[in-house]
Amino acid sequence: MKQADISLIDSIKFNEAGLVPAIAQDATSGRVLMMAWMNEEAVNETFNTGFAHYYSRSRQQQWKKGESSGNVQRVLDMYLDCDGDTILLKIEQTGPACHTNRESCFYKHKQSDEWVIIEEPLI
Amino acid sequence: MKQADISLIDSIKFNEAGLVPAIAQDATSGRVLMMAWMNEEAVNETFNTGFAHYYSRSRQQQWKKGESSGNVQRVLDMYLDCDGDTILLKIEQTGPACHTNRESCFYKHKQSDEWVIIEEPLI
Repeated sequence: MKQADISLIDSIKFNEAGLVPAIAQDATSGRVLMMAWMNEEAVNETFNTGFAHYYSRSRQQQWKKGESSGNVQRVLDMYLDCDGDTILLKIEQTGPACHTNRESCFYKHKQSDEWVIIEEPLI
Repeated sequence: MKQADISLIDSIKFNEAGLVPAIAQDATSGRVLMMAWMNEEAVNETFNTGFAHYYSRSRQQQWKKGESSGNVQRVLDMYLDCDGDTILLKIEQTGPACHTNRESCFYKHKQSDEWVIIEEPLI
Protein backbone atom coordinates (compact mmCIF):
# COMPACT_ATOMS: atom_id res chain seq x y z
CA MET A 1 0.00 0.00 0.00
CA LYS A 2 1.30 3.40 -0.92
CA GLN A 3 1.99 5.78 1.96
CA ALA A 4 -0.25 8.39 0.36
CA ASP A 5 -3.28 6.19 0.66
CA ILE A 6 -3.12 5.89 4.42
CA SER A 7 -4.64 9.30 5.19
CA LEU A 8 -7.32 8.71 2.56
CA ILE A 9 -8.16 5.37 4.14
CA ASP A 10 -8.12 6.81 7.66
CA SER A 11 -11.00 9.14 6.78
CA ILE A 12 -13.21 6.21 5.89
CA LYS A 13 -15.32 4.71 8.65
CA PHE A 14 -15.57 1.01 7.97
CA ASN A 15 -18.37 -0.78 9.79
CA GLU A 16 -17.96 -3.48 12.42
CA ALA A 17 -17.38 -6.00 9.62
CA GLY A 18 -14.65 -3.81 8.12
CA LEU A 19 -16.80 -2.78 5.16
CA VAL A 20 -18.07 0.44 3.64
CA PRO A 21 -20.91 0.74 1.09
CA ALA A 22 -19.99 2.15 -2.31
CA ILE A 23 -22.52 3.53 -4.77
CA ALA A 24 -21.55 3.35 -8.45
CA GLN A 25 -23.07 6.08 -10.61
CA ASP A 26 -22.63 6.40 -14.36
CA ALA A 27 -20.64 9.60 -14.81
CA THR A 28 -22.30 10.43 -18.12
CA SER A 29 -25.97 9.54 -17.65
CA GLY A 30 -26.08 10.06 -13.89
CA ARG A 31 -27.88 6.75 -13.52
CA VAL A 32 -27.21 4.90 -10.28
CA LEU A 33 -25.99 1.48 -11.41
CA MET A 34 -25.32 -0.53 -8.25
CA MET A 35 -24.34 -0.52 -4.63
CA ALA A 36 -21.72 -2.90 -3.31
CA TRP A 37 -19.33 -3.18 -0.39
CA MET A 38 -15.62 -2.47 -0.11
CA ASN A 39 -13.11 -3.58 2.48
CA GLU A 40 -9.88 -1.67 3.00
CA GLU A 41 -8.08 -3.78 0.40
CA ALA A 42 -10.79 -3.08 -2.20
CA VAL A 43 -10.61 0.65 -1.52
CA ASN A 44 -6.84 0.58 -1.94
CA GLU A 45 -7.05 -1.44 -5.14
CA THR A 46 -9.60 1.06 -6.45
CA PHE A 47 -7.28 3.96 -5.54
CA ASN A 48 -4.25 2.31 -7.07
CA THR A 49 -5.71 0.89 -10.28
CA GLY A 50 -8.48 3.38 -11.11
CA PHE A 51 -10.94 0.50 -11.53
CA ALA A 52 -13.66 -0.35 -9.02
CA HIS A 53 -12.91 -3.22 -6.66
CA TYR A 54 -15.41 -4.54 -4.14
CA TYR A 55 -15.65 -7.11 -1.39
CA SER A 56 -17.94 -10.07 -1.83
CA ARG A 57 -19.63 -10.90 1.45
CA SER A 58 -20.77 -14.30 0.13
CA ARG A 59 -17.38 -15.30 -1.26
CA GLN A 60 -15.55 -13.41 1.50
CA GLN A 61 -12.99 -11.96 -0.83
CA GLN A 62 -12.07 -8.78 -2.62
CA TRP A 63 -12.73 -8.74 -6.37
CA LYS A 64 -12.27 -6.51 -9.34
CA LYS A 65 -15.65 -5.66 -10.87
CA GLY A 66 -15.77 -7.16 -14.36
CA GLU A 67 -12.72 -9.35 -13.85
CA SER A 68 -14.46 -12.35 -15.40
CA SER A 69 -17.29 -10.66 -17.37
CA GLY A 70 -15.21 -7.81 -18.76
CA ASN A 71 -17.80 -5.34 -17.46
CA VAL A 72 -15.26 -3.20 -15.67
CA GLN A 73 -15.84 0.17 -14.04
CA ARG A 74 -13.29 2.92 -14.64
CA VAL A 75 -13.44 5.34 -11.73
CA LEU A 76 -13.44 8.96 -12.86
CA ASP A 77 -14.24 10.55 -9.52
CA MET A 78 -14.61 9.37 -5.96
CA TYR A 79 -16.53 11.04 -3.13
CA LEU A 80 -16.86 10.36 0.59
CA ASP A 81 -19.93 11.47 2.52
CA CYS A 82 -20.21 13.73 5.57
CA ASP A 83 -20.01 10.85 8.04
CA GLY A 84 -17.20 9.14 6.15
CA ASP A 85 -19.18 5.92 6.00
CA THR A 86 -20.38 5.84 2.38
CA ILE A 87 -18.44 6.14 -0.88
CA LEU A 88 -19.78 7.44 -4.19
CA LEU A 89 -18.00 6.45 -7.39
CA LYS A 90 -18.52 8.30 -10.66
CA ILE A 91 -17.69 5.66 -13.21
CA GLU A 92 -17.42 4.81 -16.85
CA GLN A 93 -19.13 1.43 -17.12
CA THR A 94 -18.14 -1.12 -19.74
CA GLY A 95 -21.16 -3.29 -20.59
CA PRO A 96 -24.01 -3.82 -18.14
CA ALA A 97 -23.35 -3.22 -14.44
CA CYS A 98 -25.83 -5.81 -13.23
CA HIS A 99 -25.17 -9.56 -13.17
CA THR A 100 -28.62 -9.93 -14.81
CA ASN A 101 -27.13 -8.18 -17.86
CA ARG A 102 -29.18 -5.07 -17.24
CA GLU A 103 -27.63 -1.64 -17.37
CA SER A 104 -28.46 -0.97 -13.72
CA CYS A 105 -29.21 -3.20 -10.74
CA PHE A 106 -32.11 -0.89 -9.86
CA TYR A 107 -34.65 -2.22 -12.35
CA LYS A 108 -37.54 -3.07 -10.02
CA HIS A 109 -39.81 -0.07 -9.95
CA LYS A 110 -42.53 0.42 -7.35
CA GLN A 111 -45.85 0.79 -9.11
CA SER A 112 -48.68 0.97 -6.59
CA ASP A 113 -48.62 -2.43 -4.90
CA GLU A 114 -45.86 -4.23 -6.74
CA TRP A 115 -42.28 -4.09 -7.98
CA VAL A 116 -42.37 -4.00 -11.77
CA ILE A 117 -39.29 -4.80 -13.85
CA ILE A 118 -38.44 -1.94 -16.15
CA GLU A 119 -35.57 -1.91 -18.61
CA GLU A 120 -35.21 1.86 -18.85
CA PRO A 121 -35.37 4.35 -16.00
CA LEU A 122 -38.46 6.52 -15.96
CA ILE A 123 -36.60 9.64 -14.93
CA MET B 1 -49.96 -1.23 7.76
CA LYS B 2 -51.92 -1.58 4.57
CA GLN B 3 -52.36 -5.10 3.22
CA ALA B 4 -50.98 -4.00 -0.12
CA ASP B 5 -47.64 -3.15 1.39
CA ILE B 6 -46.92 -6.65 2.62
CA SER B 7 -45.85 -8.09 -0.73
CA LEU B 8 -43.76 -5.02 -1.41
CA ILE B 9 -42.06 -5.41 1.94
CA ASP B 10 -41.55 -9.16 1.46
CA SER B 11 -39.37 -8.51 -1.59
CA ILE B 12 -36.94 -6.47 0.47
CA LYS B 13 -34.06 -8.29 2.11
CA PHE B 14 -33.36 -6.55 5.38
CA ASN B 15 -29.96 -7.30 6.91
CA GLU B 16 -29.33 -9.06 10.21
CA ALA B 17 -30.09 -5.79 12.02
CA GLY B 18 -33.40 -5.46 10.18
CA LEU B 19 -32.17 -2.61 8.00
CA VAL B 20 -31.81 -1.87 4.30
CA PRO B 21 -29.67 0.91 2.77
CA ALA B 22 -31.56 3.56 0.80
CA ILE B 23 -29.89 5.91 -1.67
CA ALA B 24 -31.60 9.27 -2.19
CA GLN B 25 -31.07 10.79 -5.64
CA ASP B 26 -32.37 14.17 -6.77
CA ALA B 27 -34.91 13.35 -9.47
CA THR B 28 -34.18 16.51 -11.42
CA SER B 29 -30.41 16.93 -11.27
CA GLY B 30 -29.56 13.25 -10.87
CA ARG B 31 -27.20 14.15 -8.04
CA VAL B 32 -26.82 11.51 -5.34
CA LEU B 33 -27.67 13.33 -2.13
CA MET B 34 -27.30 10.83 0.69
CA MET B 35 -27.43 7.23 1.79
CA ALA B 36 -29.27 6.24 4.94
CA TRP B 37 -30.88 3.17 6.45
CA MET B 38 -34.50 2.09 6.68
CA ASN B 39 -36.16 -0.46 8.89
CA GLU B 40 -39.47 -2.03 7.94
CA GLU B 41 -41.42 0.72 9.67
CA ALA B 42 -39.50 3.42 7.80
CA VAL B 43 -40.14 1.68 4.47
CA ASN B 44 -43.85 1.49 5.25
CA GLU B 45 -44.02 5.10 6.32
CA THR B 46 -42.27 6.06 3.08
CA PHE B 47 -44.77 4.00 1.08
CA ASN B 48 -47.74 5.40 2.92
CA THR B 49 -46.81 9.07 3.16
CA GLY B 50 -44.75 9.62 -0.01
CA PHE B 51 -42.00 11.23 2.08
CA ALA B 52 -38.69 9.57 2.90
CA HIS B 53 -38.41 8.03 6.35
CA TYR B 54 -35.25 6.45 7.67
CA TYR B 55 -33.98 4.60 10.72
CA SER B 56 -31.39 6.26 12.91
CA ARG B 57 -28.90 3.68 14.14
CA SER B 58 -27.54 6.07 16.76
CA ARG B 59 -30.94 7.11 18.11
CA GLN B 60 -32.40 3.67 17.39
CA GLN B 61 -35.61 5.04 16.02
CA GLN B 62 -37.41 5.67 12.79
CA TRP B 63 -37.60 9.30 11.68
CA LYS B 64 -39.06 11.39 8.94
CA LYS B 65 -36.29 13.15 7.01
CA GLY B 66 -36.70 16.88 7.54
CA GLU B 67 -39.15 16.52 10.40
CA SER B 68 -37.32 19.12 12.47
CA SER B 69 -35.33 20.97 9.77
CA GLY B 70 -38.10 21.14 7.20
CA ASN B 71 -35.73 19.63 4.62
CA VAL B 72 -38.14 16.91 3.59
CA GLN B 73 -37.79 14.52 0.67
CA ARG B 74 -40.82 13.89 -1.48
CA VAL B 75 -40.45 10.47 -3.09
CA LEU B 76 -41.31 10.50 -6.80
CA ASP B 77 -40.06 7.01 -7.65
CA MET B 78 -38.73 4.05 -5.74
CA TYR B 79 -36.54 1.23 -7.03
CA LEU B 80 -35.30 -2.04 -5.56
CA ASP B 81 -32.10 -3.66 -6.79
CA CYS B 82 -31.54 -7.15 -8.24
CA ASP B 83 -30.71 -8.68 -4.87
CA GLY B 84 -33.55 -6.88 -3.10
CA ASP B 85 -31.14 -5.48 -0.54
CA THR B 86 -30.77 -1.85 -1.61
CA ILE B 87 -33.40 0.82 -2.28
CA LEU B 88 -33.05 3.80 -4.61
CA LEU B 89 -35.30 6.81 -4.09
CA LYS B 90 -35.83 9.45 -6.73
CA ILE B 91 -36.74 12.46 -4.70
CA GLU B 92 -37.65 16.10 -4.72
CA GLN B 93 -35.51 17.60 -1.99
CA THR B 94 -36.61 20.64 -0.01
CA GLY B 95 -33.54 22.58 1.18
CA PRO B 96 -30.17 20.88 1.66
CA ALA B 97 -30.10 17.11 2.14
CA CYS B 98 -27.02 17.13 4.35
CA HIS B 99 -27.01 18.03 8.03
CA THR B 100 -23.99 20.25 7.22
CA ASN B 101 -26.39 22.38 5.15
CA ARG B 102 -24.80 21.24 1.92
CA GLU B 103 -26.90 20.13 -1.01
CA SER B 104 -25.41 16.63 -0.93
CA CYS B 105 -23.65 14.58 1.75
CA PHE B 106 -21.06 13.56 -0.85
CA TYR B 107 -18.96 16.73 -0.76
CA LYS B 108 -15.52 15.24 -0.03
CA HIS B 109 -13.83 14.70 -3.34
CA LYS B 110 -10.72 12.56 -3.76
CA GLN B 111 -7.97 14.67 -5.27
CA SER B 112 -4.72 12.71 -5.43
CA ASP B 113 -3.85 12.06 -1.78
CA GLU B 114 -6.60 13.87 0.06
CA TRP B 115 -10.35 14.41 0.40
CA VAL B 116 -11.09 17.99 -0.64
CA ILE B 117 -14.38 19.65 0.27
CA ILE B 118 -16.20 20.86 -2.82
CA GLU B 119 -19.50 22.67 -2.84
CA GLU B 120 -20.53 21.76 -6.36
CA PRO B 121 -20.16 18.39 -8.06
CA LEU B 122 -17.52 18.26 -10.79
CA ILE B 123 -19.60 16.07 -13.06
